[in-house]
Amino acid sequence: MDDRVREHAAVLVDWSARIEEGDDVVVSVAHDAHDLGVAVAEKLGEIGANPVYTYSSGEVSRAYLQAHDGGFEVGEHERGLIESADAYLTLGGSRNTAAAADVPGDTLAAYRAARTEIGEARMETDWVSTVHPTRALAQAAGMAYEEYADFVYDAVLRDWEALAEEMERLKRVLDEGSEVSIENERTDLTMSIDGRTAVNSCASVAYDSHNLPSGEVFTAPYDTEGEVVFDVPMTVDGRRVQDVRLVFEGGEVVEYGASMNEDVIEEVVELDDGSRRLGELGIGMNRGIDRYTDSILFDEKMAETVHLALGRAYDACLPDGESGNDSAVHQDFIADMSGESKLVVDGEVVQRNGTFRWEDGFEEA
Amino acid sequence: MDDRVREHAAVLVDWSARIEEGDDVVVSVAHDAHDLGVAVAEKLGEIGANPVYTYSSGEVSRAYLQAHDGGFEVGEHERGLIESADAYLTLGGSRNTAAAADVPGDTLAAYRAARTEIGEARMETDWVSTVHPTRALAQAAGMAYEEYADFVYDAVLRDWEALAEEMERLKRVLDEGSEVSIENERTDLTMSIDGRTAVNSCASVAYDSHNLPSGEVFTAPYDTEGEVVFDVPMTVDGRRVQDVRLVFEGGEVVEYGASMNEDVIEEVVELDDGSRRLGELGIGMNRGIDRYTDSILFDEKMAETVHLALGRAYDACLPDGESGNDSAVHQDFIADMSGESKLVVDGEVVQRNGTFRWEDGFEEA
Repeated sequence: MDDRVREHAAVLVDWSARIEEGDDVVVSVAHDAHDLGVAVAEKLGEIGANPVYTYSSGEVSRAYLQAHDGGFEVGEHERGLIESADAYLTLGGSRNTAAAADVPGDTLAAYRAARTEIGEARMETDWVSTVHPTRALAQAAGMAYEEYADFVYDAVLRDWEALAEEMERLKRVLDEGSEVSIENERTDLTMSIDGRTAVNSCASVAYDSHNLPSGEVFTAPYDTEGEVVFDVPMTVDGRRVQDVRLVFEGGEVVEYGASMNEDVIEEVVELDDGSRRLGELGIGMNRGIDRYTDSILFDEKMAETVHLALGRAYDACLPDGESGNDSAVHQDFIADMSGESKLVVDGEVVQRNGTFRWEDGFEEA
Repeated sequence: MDDRVREHAAVLVDWSARIEEGDDVVVSVAHDAHDLGVAVAEKLGEIGANPVYTYSSGEVSRAYLQAHDGGFEVGEHERGLIESADAYLTLGGSRNTAAAADVPGDTLAAYRAARTEIGEARMETDWVSTVHPTRALAQAAGMAYEEYADFVYDAVLRDWEALAEEMERLKRVLDEGSEVSIENERTDLTMSIDGRTAVNSCASVAYDSHNLPSGEVFTAPYDTEGEVVFDVPMTVDGRRVQDVRLVFEGGEVVEYGASMNEDVIEEVVELDDGSRRLGELGIGMNRGIDRYTDSILFDEKMAETVHLALGRAYDACLPDGESGNDSAVHQDFIADMSGESKLVVDGEVVQRNGTFRWEDGFEEA
């Protein structure tokens, strides 16, 4: 076994999920995540945790959903499993990212709706999601398998403690700031963040961060004004979009466009009241991620990018009891900040041309 | 997918486990049993049952056990899962039948002891164990993969309803009988079965039969007299034994031997009081199984064989409240009855040269 598989398991179990002796852990193993499953089992044995391994497969799900008449229910046994779990580790690793592509949308929607309580119960645990590099995921990222494995481990095997400290600096700036603006060749956007709390998403449940890799600081902006172009290509609902352009006035989108599949943007913007407003401003800080792979788990954490989401805001960013932007959607878009660019908080440049002011090479002006 | 995988799933779900709409089902999927997992998922979807798929892997178990210090406990979440399950389907399908070969025996014993309650809770469900043909299992059976798949499906895809009826005939003979004897070239053994109840093991929970394939009728004999030679080779605790010879007087083994690894027999016979006496007489009736593969799941069900076990008797064979032969062991041995042989109950020949008296070709004398 590649040593990096064991290192991945150690980061997942120790740093991310903070598993301790006697913890009751569900480990969801995708078909091709077997090797990571073995390494995680070894870690859980060392610690003296109590695992149950569940099996996750797009092909199994598809077979069940295609055959079912749609009146889904959740078993008592599944409830018993999830409600008593201390932690829930999802080891993604698909054999075919399109394995369930032909399941009708309304079947999937009915299934998900029936399972809302299971999703919520899982959120009550120390849950963490990660992926094991597989050939199917390499293909989806347009990379050779070995190349993709290097990419995944560069993103996952960080010095997370050091990164968490650096991200804490940015969090403090955003927490104390009132107004943030993003500027680059095609973007000039200003948002209010006064009263909002930034989340240091450093891939650990101790920071309320549940993805591995992570490496972003995000908050919930409002009163957005100006124009932004998202130059990072991505796939939304199966359709590729690029150069998405949004113009905001008084916090709302008043104009939009894209160089391809503009109808996708229309569907998002016109969905409901909240989908015209931003729910998230995120700043990528993971320098292990050096290219786009059309996977939001990686792309939005990439250093020298910012992302904005139309739609729902995260509660963690809002003052207690206050509801932020509400929507049925949370659609991220990503802008590259590695070229000529500025991230400005209350008039002070925090990042210029992709370099933060506390990093070597930062230019004052 | 091979049509037989779907047929296997149908037999397992409909005939064996009798799954109904709304049943909460645990499906334990071995790494290489994926295809059978897909077919079972399709059946469960059709019926409207609620599955949780667990992942079973010798490599995962080994990694956990090797790393653990030995103070095992059962998680509340696992208890919650098993105790609320209506049925538990085990889809075996190893990648390597020796995957956990280097786990120390005392670690394994401690793990099993800690999990007794889980095993018992599983027995409270409608549990069924089966295997999906894999390359590792083909290798263990000394067969080509395609050849082994044919072998498994011949054993599993029977007309179970017809076989259950035929087995019921033999069950009635044994239930009404007082004395049974087995004779062939090297065997002449007589046992009492008076007051004992035979089990029609036809691969269905409706008959208290939990293996697929099955196909045997068994009871609990006592007061054994005579000599028996088991000519079917098998592996006991990792050691190959052949031509095991036992001589009984007053129900107990008074002499034993084997053409190889006789020490294995000594260990079994000398283990405790009960291991000197028989706990089971079983009569194989599955004509789909036409060769020995050194797997007790298949071998003991083979038509034209009988098997006897030293040690523990099954409660189902005993009068209510009566405890039969008790022992820490239940070790089966198998004798071929396809040559010149007789199975006699109360003086009447029930099977001659492998043919039952209700079958074509039965010779009266």
